[in-house]
Amino acid sequence: MIRFYNGRVITMQGELRPESLEVWTDGGKIAYVGPGKEGGSFEREIDMKGGVLLPGFKNAHTHSAMTFLRSFADDEPLDTWLNQKVFPYEAKLTGAAVYAFAKVAIMEYLSSGITSCFDMYFHNDAYVAANTECGFRAVLCGAINNFDKNPRKLEDDYNKYNAVSPLISYKLGFHAEYTTGKPILEYVASLAKKYSAPVYTHNSETASEVAGCKERYGMTPTELFDSLGIYDFGGGGFHCVYMSERDLEIFRDRGLFAVTNPSSNLKLASGIAPLCDMRKAGISVAIGTDGPASNNALDMFREMYLAAVLPKVREMDASAMDAADVLRSACSVGALAMGLTDCDCIKEGKRADLVLIDTNRPNMQPEHNIVKNIVYAGSKENVRLTMIDGRVLYENGEFFIGAEPGKVYEEANRLAREITG
Amino acid sequence: MIRFYNGRVITMQGELRPESLEVWTDGGKIAYVGPGKEGGSFEREIDMKGGVLLPGFKNAHTHSAMTFLRSFADDEPLDTWLNQKVFPYEAKLTGAAVYAFAKVAIMEYLSSGITSCFDMYFHNDAYVAANTECGFRAVLCGAINNFDKNPRKLEDDYNKYNAVSPLISYKLGFHAEYTTGKPILEYVASLAKKYSAPVYTHNSETASEVAGCKERYGMTPTELFDSLGIYDFGGGGFHCVYMSERDLEIFRDRGLFAVTNPSSNLKLASGIAPLCDMRKAGISVAIGTDGPASNNALDMFREMYLAAVLPKVREMDASAMDAADVLRSACSVGALAMGLTDCDCIKEGKRADLVLIDTNRPNMQPEHNIVKNIVYAGSKENVRLTMIDGRVLYENGEFFIGAEPGKVYEEANRLAREITG
Repeated sequence: MIRFYNGRVITMQGELRPESLEVWTDGGKIAYVGPGKEGGSFEREIDMKGGVLLPGFKNAHTHSAMTFLRSFADDEPLDTWLNQKVFPYEAKLTGAAVYAFAKVAIMEYLSSGITSCFDMYFHNDAYVAANTECGFRAVLCGAINNFDKNPRKLEDDYNKYNAVSPLISYKLGFHAEYTTGKPILEYVASLAKKYSAPVYTHNSETASEVAGCKERYGMTPTELFDSLGIYDFGGGGFHCVYMSERDLEIFRDRGLFAVTNPSSNLKLASGIAPLCDMRKAGISVAIGTDGPASNNALDMFREMYLAAVLPKVREMDASAMDAADVLRSACSVGALAMGLTDCDCIKEGKRADLVLIDTNRPNMQPEHNIVKNIVYAGSKENVRLTMIDGRVLYENGEFFIGAEPGKVYEEANRLAREITG
Repeated sequence: MIRFYNGRVITMQGELRPESLEVWTDGGKIAYVGPGKEGGSFEREIDMKGGVLLPGFKNAHTHSAMTFLRSFADDEPLDTWLNQKVFPYEAKLTGAAVYAFAKVAIMEYLSSGITSCFDMYFHNDAYVAANTECGFRAVLCGAINNFDKNPRKLEDDYNKYNAVSPLISYKLGFHAEYTTGKPILEYVASLAKKYSAPVYTHNSETASEVAGCKERYGMTPTELFDSLGIYDFGGGGFHCVYMSERDLEIFRDRGLFAVTNPSSNLKLASGIAPLCDMRKAGISVAIGTDGPASNNALDMFREMYLAAVLPKVREMDASAMDAADVLRSACSVGALAMGLTDCDCIKEGKRADLVLIDTNRPNMQPEHNIVKNIVYAGSKENVRLTMIDGRVLYENGEFFIGAEPGKVYEEANRLAREITG
């Protein structure tokens, strides 16, 4: 067992407040949460030094392997970016490259206290290898679209990757309405029905995406997906920047998750998502970094800050969003959005996916309100330790992922040059 | 002498590009910038391990001692925030408290690679003590307004604090139009003339500030200040969110600096500054964090990111702002805005105010473009070393400021509780 003591715990059960508790983990699970007591047999005891233990951050939308395009195509119009700087190079990706690029991303996630990702890309075998070798928890998301030679492999993938490893799961998904024709959408709906499974996709990221869908179908993407039965068993949308009242009603009625990607939406000039409208409508909001080609960081502190402050400027009201809601989105709601119902809070029996926040740093001082300190002033410097499934994978700046960082960087640089050069 | 070797230098002279150079410092100055050569006698040699040496970041607008209100009053409307949660507690501040709270801020600046601040507050003796004891470089900014019993002390302060220490300088300034009556403004203008000195102030931060000024004077704040001669010898404005075309012309014609505070403008729901219009008009833009009560972090990486991406979403154009312009603003333009003409670039004879960026972290990998990596993906985790006036004050997470961090935090917490409790 591992014992966390001498600190505070925000369990994310009920109200968000730090409590002076101990947390013991046993194997991959949380074995005890409560006041200090006798009786534990520990292989390691971790003095939290007054820090705060949280359920790990959940990155509810990303494309990890896109690290290979980080800072390769910035400050360019969206069209140029996508058609000249992303698609042609993605076409050159091999499984080996995806494996190498995903590892860089996993390291960055760990350094930011992220314990699982909802990851949409291709070469999924390579993804599985990178994640399981590092000990990282990933939920893969189907990404089928018109460019897939065999979109019907979605069902095979669904069954295959949901059985491949306890650290890996897989959700039905497709890329987006604008890249996916109606027959494929109908096929996705049939799978949702067959497996009573939720479905996820990019949804209403840009104004032109919504306009195009209306032109093609006379409906918004959300209305279209709902009309086809795609959302009959839940799921969600990534981005959700341009949402009509009717879209929000559908999200609420279907229990869909809206995954916001504030940093990407700024950098690609997509817009600012209506998070206040979502909250008012009772929609659960999770948070994602999106891929490193459009962010360019994979940092939950950046996303939390933006998810808290962008609604304020969108509504021109400094009280528009509360930091506690945002922290809950980053830790608990994200887990539920990805179907990780055993990673959403700190409770006996849940998986031991934890982040230890170092409060002995100037940006956390003085301490009037630790939740607000984390959301408004927190940064990667405050991540002292990241644990996934009971294993410490990151601590004091060092990685314990079975690979030497320098070698991971070297390989990523070599392959990135090869592909983009 | 201290030698930096085995890395890259972005000197900020001319184009922004990393060059494989060495930098030697001698006392407080840069003694040599060039290829490796014989002949140095070094007390220390710093292996940059491939990292990047930059002129330190300049925080061109802040109120450091407001750390005492960090996370004390968030998510509240601006009026409540200012009148109920800021002003009443500021009234209780003593010099000893300002000293303690400023030290927390200085530590945070160092952890973010910030080597000097343009700091507007009161109890300036305490500020000077905190900065000089830590070895930090500060430019104090006059903050006179209607609440000062003797606004005419501005002149005394100007002469006193410009002579107090090589690390300290002082600029003429007043709080803002809406807190400063015309007789004081005229007095400031007379000092500007007497000393041929630039003047700085909060300028056009909110729409209501501009509307109020127009109602009182039939002019925008910028027009008013210009009409009084306040800007006759240069200076600048903090925030500059609501700027008319005429305001921008005045800024251009007078060579005024616009200091943008993107994070504060979001959090207080002030708006998004027209940085593209400023660039087009040829106005120099510097970057500031504003105070920790309205940000709440003191992190130049956050501000650089926002200064780069907010213009994109404001103009709905992903190519609206280039990362290189932003990095130049953070390092060089900031220095010039504050009158630190010997801290703007890495060049023989300039002050040795430097930040060493650690690129051996996942967020800096792979490396297509180091400038974009720093602006779009950089974080405090990448600050390996911060040097001010030739002294290493921060390295590998540790502070060398003649004070024990735990004691600084303890004192700040004690005093913050005393004041706000």
